[in-house]
This record gives sequence, structure tokens and C-alpha cells, in this order.
Amino acid sequence: MSRKKHQGEGGKTLRIIPLGGLGEIGKNMTVFEYGGEILVVDTGIMFPDNDMLGIDYIIPDFQYLLDKRDKVKGIVITHGHEDHTGAIHHVIQEINAPIYATPLTRGLLEVKLARGGVLEKTKLHTVEAGDTVQIGPFQVEFCHVCHSIPDCVALGITTPAGLIVHTGDYKFDHTPVDGWPTDYAKLAEFSGRGVLAMLADSTNADKRGWTPSERVIEPAFDKVFREAKGRILVATFASLISRIQQVGEAAMRHGRKMAFVGLSMRENAKMAKKLGYLNLPDELLVPIEDALKMKAHEVVLMCTGSQGEPSSIVGRLASGTNRQFDLLPTDTVVLSSHPIPGNEESVYRTINKLFQRGAHVIYDPIAAVHVSGHANQEEMKFMLNLIKPKYLIPVHGELRHLHQHKAIAQEVGMDAKNIEVIENGQVVEFRGGKLHLGERVPGGYVFVDGSGVGDIGPSVMREREALAREGFIFVNLRLDADSGNLITEPEIITRGFVYLRDSDQLMHETRRHVENVVARSNGNLREQVEKELKDFFYNSTKRSPMIFVVVNKE
Amino acid sequence: MSRKKHQGEGGKTLRIIPLGGLGEIGKNMTVFEYGGEILVVDTGIMFPDNDMLGIDYIIPDFQYLLDKRDKVKGIVITHGHEDHTGAIHHVIQEINAPIYATPLTRGLLEVKLARGGVLEKTKLHTVEAGDTVQIGPFQVEFCHVCHSIPDCVALGITTPAGLIVHTGDYKFDHTPVDGWPTDYAKLAEFSGRGVLAMLADSTNADKRGWTPSERVIEPAFDKVFREAKGRILVATFASLISRIQQVGEAAMRHGRKMAFVGLSMRENAKMAKKLGYLNLPDELLVPIEDALKMKAHEVVLMCTGSQGEPSSIVGRLASGTNRQFDLLPTDTVVLSSHPIPGNEESVYRTINKLFQRGAHVIYDPIAAVHVSGHANQEEMKFMLNLIKPKYLIPVHGELRHLHQHKAIAQEVGMDAKNIEVIENGQVVEFRGGKLHLGERVPGGYVFVDGSGVGDIGPSVMREREALAREGFIFVNLRLDADSGNLITEPEIITRGFVYLRDSDQLMHETRRHVENVVARSNGNLREQVEKELKDFFYNSTKRSPMIFVVVNKE
Repeated sequence: MSRKKHQGEGGKTLRIIPLGGLGEIGKNMTVFEYGGEILVVDTGIMFPDNDMLGIDYIIPDFQYLLDKRDKVKGIVITHGHEDHTGAIHHVIQEINAPIYATPLTRGLLEVKLARGGVLEKTKLHTVEAGDTVQIGPFQVEFCHVCHSIPDCVALGITTPAGLIVHTGDYKFDHTPVDGWPTDYAKLAEFSGRGVLAMLADSTNADKRGWTPSERVIEPAFDKVFREAKGRILVATFASLISRIQQVGEAAMRHGRKMAFVGLSMRENAKMAKKLGYLNLPDELLVPIEDALKMKAHEVVLMCTGSQGEPSSIVGRLASGTNRQFDLLPTDTVVLSSHPIPGNEESVYRTINKLFQRGAHVIYDPIAAVHVSGHANQEEMKFMLNLIKPKYLIPVHGELRHLHQHKAIAQEVGMDAKNIEVIENGQVVEFRGGKLHLGERVPGGYVFVDGSGVGDIGPSVMREREALAREGFIFVNLRLDADSGNLITEPEIITRGFVYLRDSDQLMHETRRHVENVVARSNGNLREQVEKELKDFFYNSTKRSPMIFVVVNKE
Repeated sequence: MSRKKHQGEGGKTLRIIPLGGLGEIGKNMTVFEYGGEILVVDTGIMFPDNDMLGIDYIIPDFQYLLDKRDKVKGIVITHGHEDHTGAIHHVIQEINAPIYATPLTRGLLEVKLARGGVLEKTKLHTVEAGDTVQIGPFQVEFCHVCHSIPDCVALGITTPAGLIVHTGDYKFDHTPVDGWPTDYAKLAEFSGRGVLAMLADSTNADKRGWTPSERVIEPAFDKVFREAKGRILVATFASLISRIQQVGEAAMRHGRKMAFVGLSMRENAKMAKKLGYLNLPDELLVPIEDALKMKAHEVVLMCTGSQGEPSSIVGRLASGTNRQFDLLPTDTVVLSSHPIPGNEESVYRTINKLFQRGAHVIYDPIAAVHVSGHANQEEMKFMLNLIKPKYLIPVHGELRHLHQHKAIAQEVGMDAKNIEVIENGQVVEFRGGKLHLGERVPGGYVFVDGSGVGDIGPSVMREREALAREGFIFVNLRLDADSGNLITEPEIITRGFVYLRDSDQLMHETRRHVENVVARSNGNLREQVEKELKDFFYNSTKRSPMIFVVVNKE
């Protein structure tokens, strides 16, 4: 590559580009580019909003990288949550760059890469917090931070343009369950060297104060264990290893055995135990088959389903469709999680169903059985004062959170013009120690539906929405080619429009309207029937189903 | 009616039946029945959950009343919110009983009855808080309570079986905006007479402490008015008359004029002003046309759209589709409301879009610009200690709230067996001063879609969901009746399945599969084609669209 080309691609410019995310900015994937060489941070997925009908999940639109795939020198994953790891096999299929991750994160990535059929060809490197790795022109230092999964890192990225700090997801927990607080010394060291810019987690920018320590939930769990007469079922995210640890410790204190229920819960617990992130004695743990034979007050079952997912253990218990065991009226079910925004309806419906089946259900805010894994406002101020970046680029949050993060940064004395609220695909350039806004590149999201990646766009989504709202009606016409008369009665197929069993009259009138149009038609019969039915249905039902007419001239 | 018949219908039994509601219990409609005579309290609607596709709104299933319509002696409406009034014209069409309501509630009912075309035939009676009305065997006393709309009442219903207190929606606001606190004396008077049972609002049963007074939002509004450089737009529910009053008072304090934007906001403000519930001087108010010509810092616009509804003023401003005026980058938009559960995604999307258009957006929890209209836990305890009912029937909430209300009542000393958590349609009977559970009657909900009431049931909803998730494909086959060969290529219509423009190959293969089946078919061709395509689509796309095949033999 010629020097000129180099300059054309940025020359002495550092480029940072947030990619992907659904509403949230800079969450799932971030590109660092210098002198034509690229570092990718995180490769996450998002779950679809309620009105993204039929979509399985969403990955970042990383087409920006596709004609630069050889330039990608490495992929760094900050921690093992889906929204930072879930798209890894989609990315590796296109860009086979080496991956760098801490042990637990690597373990969780391996499961995903194996399921995606690309584990064999992937180059995986284990790093430890405190390590430094040179990736192209980027010297990446890994700094331990607390979050709701162990082995999280923030990144100090020394580039020829300056030092960039990327916080990843973090909170400042002084008494974390794994006894490993955020590495303040390392963050202070970055600060001492002078930080050009910080990309910082904005998730809880509208939450006052400090996020409580994971430890604060222990009294709430002790109360649950003290009062429960029968079985205890605790549902949480399968990746929330520290919560599993805490429930195990509560079980030991109260003389119960613990069993894992659900594939992801069993797999994650096994891997976390093997790698030393889950520290529970073997004699505490029993297989679910044994737990079900024990007395009710002797066991606690650790389950999936804290988001009310119908296919999870708790979801199936709520609907009475779990195969291995049923809910008992003496069960106490603890939902140790917050509903993910948009999931509230489904979570609360599940809770209501559990109550309906007689169980006692404990959930936040009824009891303090969950805390957030993200920094609140005071922690965000602390991070700003600790790192003292010249520029702040708020990330990990919706626009409203980024703007609130900006307001917080102004409160601690940053100048508004040194805080850049950007959207996905917006290139940020650093030249001569100064921030400039570059061009916009495609940085949105791509739908995954079944085995299709990116083939479902806005027009198909609009069709799905129209079908969902009003259904469709299909009319098959068989005409004599010579006379133009109907050979048989019009055949009608309809779904999602009216309840057919109660709609004899409507269907009868529909056929009569069709026959009338056929009898007096001159011109485009199909269009005339469709228009007639559109008017007829709107007038008689105030609904507008999709209408399709096929004319067979025989 | 013979004495025997009387006893057959309950005799000396008081029957209470909660009807309707979607998840929530006893919210929209409650039936009181004694000696075959009936009193109905409230006739509300609910808005559909996100996954109730295409449904406009939901009304209570009141078929229980249909063969007793002559027995309904009166309908009492506790306050003017949609979830207590919205189904009034559906009810009046079937059951033309006299309606009793306070002046503002009556005014809001008249608008609905007129729109429903039944105002003429409806018998409306205005009552004032403090009044007593005899309705059949029920002596109904109206007791003023605070909520988020003026002119709310709780009910003391003296029946031959005992005194029942129905709280309606309430909070204990010591400094309400309209200066009219809850009538503690009246509640205490009920208590002094001995209350057999209380039906009480459980909405905020999982919220600690006391709900703050409406007054607490004034400092937050003063800050907004002090700091805003340009226009201020405040969005709230059109029925939240006290909020309109507060914004008007803030406008006067800060020297701005006020304009109402949006039909329901204008209509409600006009009616509330006429009836004396909105106390703002004429010189404060300007028509929107004038406001738009004034300097930006001289006006505040009171808008609809606090729930992010796309068709509301704020929704249209966010999407850039408002006709009368556009958002300005100097605008400050205040969302003075909480998202209704299930609306979070849409509200936050709207906020993000407003930020994107450059506006400054203020919303709870960024600033205390909204408080709840419902009692929190400490108020619920106060109500229990004030009324001292023998029995508590928690209502107005999901099952999880009712169970939490039960726990609260136990905390203040009630015996668990005197607290009955029931679901809609469960008859509760009082005989000899004791509560008995009666039979279950239909008490669910009925979908309203277009002009259809109740014709959309679970099977149509399942069809809509299937169409929404995977779309459909329709295949029209024309065969030679003699040879069984295709006369023309199979005609294919598909929506919501794949993006057709990129799916030439898939459609080509689809036709080939169909042709193969036709060539070797022996038996039910239609079923064979459907099965072949089902397998083909699943294998090639991992999707399962609805498949329809029509075979025309010519």
C-alpha cells in the first residue's frame, strides 16, 4: 500500500466508528482504525423489539469492514454477555481475525463458535486483566472492571494519535461476590499518561446515586431461605455467575442442596466451575433428578427464565408445560433480575401465572433480589474524574442516555464542546489531538430470521405488520374464457381477518359482491374485484385486510 | 317475581362480581347484586398488549348482565378516566340503565355517549361528592378522593347484607392542586358504621412509602421554565386536568402564554374550564395559531402524546410529520407522565427521536415532572386502618399486585382468611356477615377491532401471529383436467416471507419443486404440494410461512 493511499484512508488520523445496535449506540461493535489497520471491539447481538415480527435476533451491519477484511488485525471482546459476543460467528465467517478475550469470556465464545461451526478455524488468544497486547498499531491494555458477569475488562488503547479508554460495561463494586474489585490503580495510571478520549458506558445515565454492590442482595435471599416452607426456585440470567455463587452460598447457610435446571444454566455453571469462576463445593450440588426426589425444603433449583421467556424453565412452569416437573403450591419462586426494557409485559404475565398456580413469587421491587451491573450517575462522575479524558464519547445507551451522560460530564466540569454525542455509523476522527466528525458509514443493524441474514428488510416487515393487523383474503376465480362467466362459485381463503365459523353471512355477501363485479366487468377484472372488496370490507367491518384475486380463464 | 325465584337468585345474599380487565382484576367493571337487583360500578376499557395484533381496544365481557338487563337499576362511574368510562356506549346499547356521576365525569361521559350515538337515549344524573342515592336495594354514598383527575369518588354502598366500601382509584394528597383533599371524615364515618368488606385499589402495591403530592412537581417545572431558552412543549394525558392547571400556573409565574394543541387536549381543557375544574385566566390562553407567531420564549404549548403515540402531537413532531408546525432545535419538550406498562419502547423511541431532532427532552426520572395518581403501600395501610373492613377484596391490579396488597393487609393485622384474592368473573357472596366464594361466570374481555365487537377470538389472533412471524405463500395451479399436466407455470403470491426482489432463485426453485410434485402426484395434490413446500422452505430458510395451494382442473 502506497503512502498516498495510506493518507487517503486517514494517514495520521485515528478513526473510531460505533456499529450496530438497536436504539443503543456503540454497544455491540466498535471499530478503531489507524493507518488503514483495524481493531474491532466486541461483536454483539440485540434482541428484537416487540414489533419486529418474527425476527430471531439482530446483528450489527458491519459492511464497512467487508472490503477491508485483511486489514482487521484483531477482535477484542470485553466480556461474555450476548450483546457483546453473540454475533461472533457471523463476524468470523467474514473476517477471520484473531480474537483476544479473558478466560471466562473465551470459554463462552468457544460455545458460540462451535454452535456456529467456525470454532476450528478461529484463532483464539486468552488474555488476563493486566496484560498488554499489540494488535497492529494498537497497544491494548486490559483492565479489570466489575459488572454482572466475572472477568470483564475495560480497555486502554494506545494509538499513535493518543490513548483511548473504552470502559466496556462496568460498575464500581467495592464488595463484589468474586472479591475482585475494579482495578482503580490501572485506571489512574491511564489517567496519569493523559487520556485523549474516553468511550464510556451510559446505560444507567438516568439513575441517581451509586449502583448497590452485588452483596446487598444477600439479606433478601436470607429472608427468602428463612421463610420458604417448600422448594425455592431462583431464576436469573445463565451468565450471571456471581448470582449463582450467591444462591449457592445462601443454600449452604440454610442447609439446602442446589440443582441447575435448563441447558444454558447447566452449561454455564459447569464451565464457570471448571475455570474457577464459580466456587461451590461438590457436595452442595445435586443433579435435578435427585433434587426432585428430595424433600421440598431441602433444595433450591437454579433456573433460566428470569425474562419470562415461554421456552425457559420458569416460562414452562408458569404455563404448566414443563416436562420434568411441575410447580407446587408450596414453591417459592424468586426472579432475580430486572425485566429488560420491552420485556415487562411478558415478565409480569409470567409472574401472574405463577401466582395463579399457587406459588409464592418474589421479585424486585417486592424484595431486593437484584441489582444492576451498570454504573449509576455518581459512578459515571467518578469515572470521569478518575480518567480525566480530554474528550468524552458517551456510548452504550440510547440517545437519551448519551445526552444525560453529557449533562453529567458537564456537571463535573467538562466543556460541552469536548463531549460528542454520536449515532451508529458516525466516524469520529482524531488528528493533532483534536476530535473531528468524519463521514457517516452504514452502521445500522441487520435482521436474522431463521437461516436468513439480512434478507428481511423494511418492506417485508411492513407486510408482516399489515398481515398481523388485519389478515388477508384470497379469492380464486374460474371464468369461462369465451363468455367471461364464472364456472364455479368464487373460492375464498382468509386468515387473521374474521372468525370464519361466525362469518357465513359475510362470506356469502363477499361472493355476491364478487359475482356482481364479474357480471358487469369491463376491463381489469382483478383490480375491479379487489377494489369492490376493499370498499365492502371497510364499510361492513371497518377493517382493511390484504386482498388478493387470481383470475383463471379456462 | 316470586319470593322463591328471589332466593334462587341469591335471596339474602349480596353478590359482587368483578368483570373485564386484561391482567388487571376488578378494574373496568364491577357488579353488585342483591335480591335479583343489580348495580354496576364503572364501564371501562383497556388498551391491548403489544402482541394483541390489530386490536383497537378491549371491553369487559358483560354477558352475565344480558339476560338480566331489566334488573340493572343503575350505573355509577367513579371518575372520568378511559379505564372506567370507555365502554359506556357499548354498555348503554345493551343496558339502558340510569348513570350517576359527578359533574366532570358526567361531562366526559357525555362526549363518549355522543360519539357512540347513544347520548339522546341515556338517562344521566349528576351527583356531588357527599350525596346519597338509592339505587334499587343499594344506598350509594359518594365520597371525594384524590387521584390524577378531579372529581373522583369512592363509594360507600349500604346493602341489606352490610356496608361495602369501594375505594375507586385514589391517593391521599394533602396538597392537591385543586385544594380538595380526600374526605377523611366520610371514610371515618363509614368505618364507624362498620364495614363488611372493602374493595381497594392495588395499582401501586409494590411501591414503597407514600405517593408524593401533585405539588412536588412544581419546583421541577419552575426549573424547566427558568432554563428554557426557546419554546416549552409539555405533553401529558388530556384528562390530567390538574397538570394542565399546574403548567398554566408556571406559565403565569414565568411570563409565558399557554396554547392547547391536539383535539382531545382542547376539548378537555374547554370542558374543565367551563365546569370550573380548570382555573386559568382568559388572558393566559392563546390559540395555537397565535402562539406560533409569538417569540419562542413567550409560549408554552400543552400537547397530547405523553405515551409516544405516533398519531399524537408529540409523536408527529418526533417523526417530522406534524402539519401545523415543526420541532425547533431550541425547543424544550417535557413528558409529564410515566409510560403505561408495555408502552416503554414506544415512549423511549419517541424521546430518542426528539433528541435526534435537536430538542432538549425532560422526562421522569431525569426530573421530577410526574407523580402517580395511585396510593402507595403506606397509603394502602392507612386506608386499611381507617376503614377497618372485616373483609378485604384487593382490586385494580394484576394478580401480583393483589397478592402484595394481601401481604400489606396482613402487615396491618388482618387475618389472611379475611382477604380474598379473586379473578375476574369470580362471584363473591356475603351471607350472614360472612364471605363465601360463589361460582365463576364469564368475566374476561372482548376485543374491539374496527366495527367488530367480540368477533376476533383466540383462533383469529393465532392466525395473525403466525402471519406476522413468517408471512404466507400462495400457489395457484392450473391443470389440464384430462392429463393432469400444468397448463401454465405455477402462479405464486407471497407476503411477509422473503424480500421478493432478492428471491428469484428461491422462487425459481419453489416452482421446480411444485412442478416435480405435480408430475409424480397420485392422490391429494394440494396436500402433497403443501407438504413439499413446507419441507423445502424450512430446509432452505429455517422459516415456516403459511402455505396455501389452489388446484384448478380445466
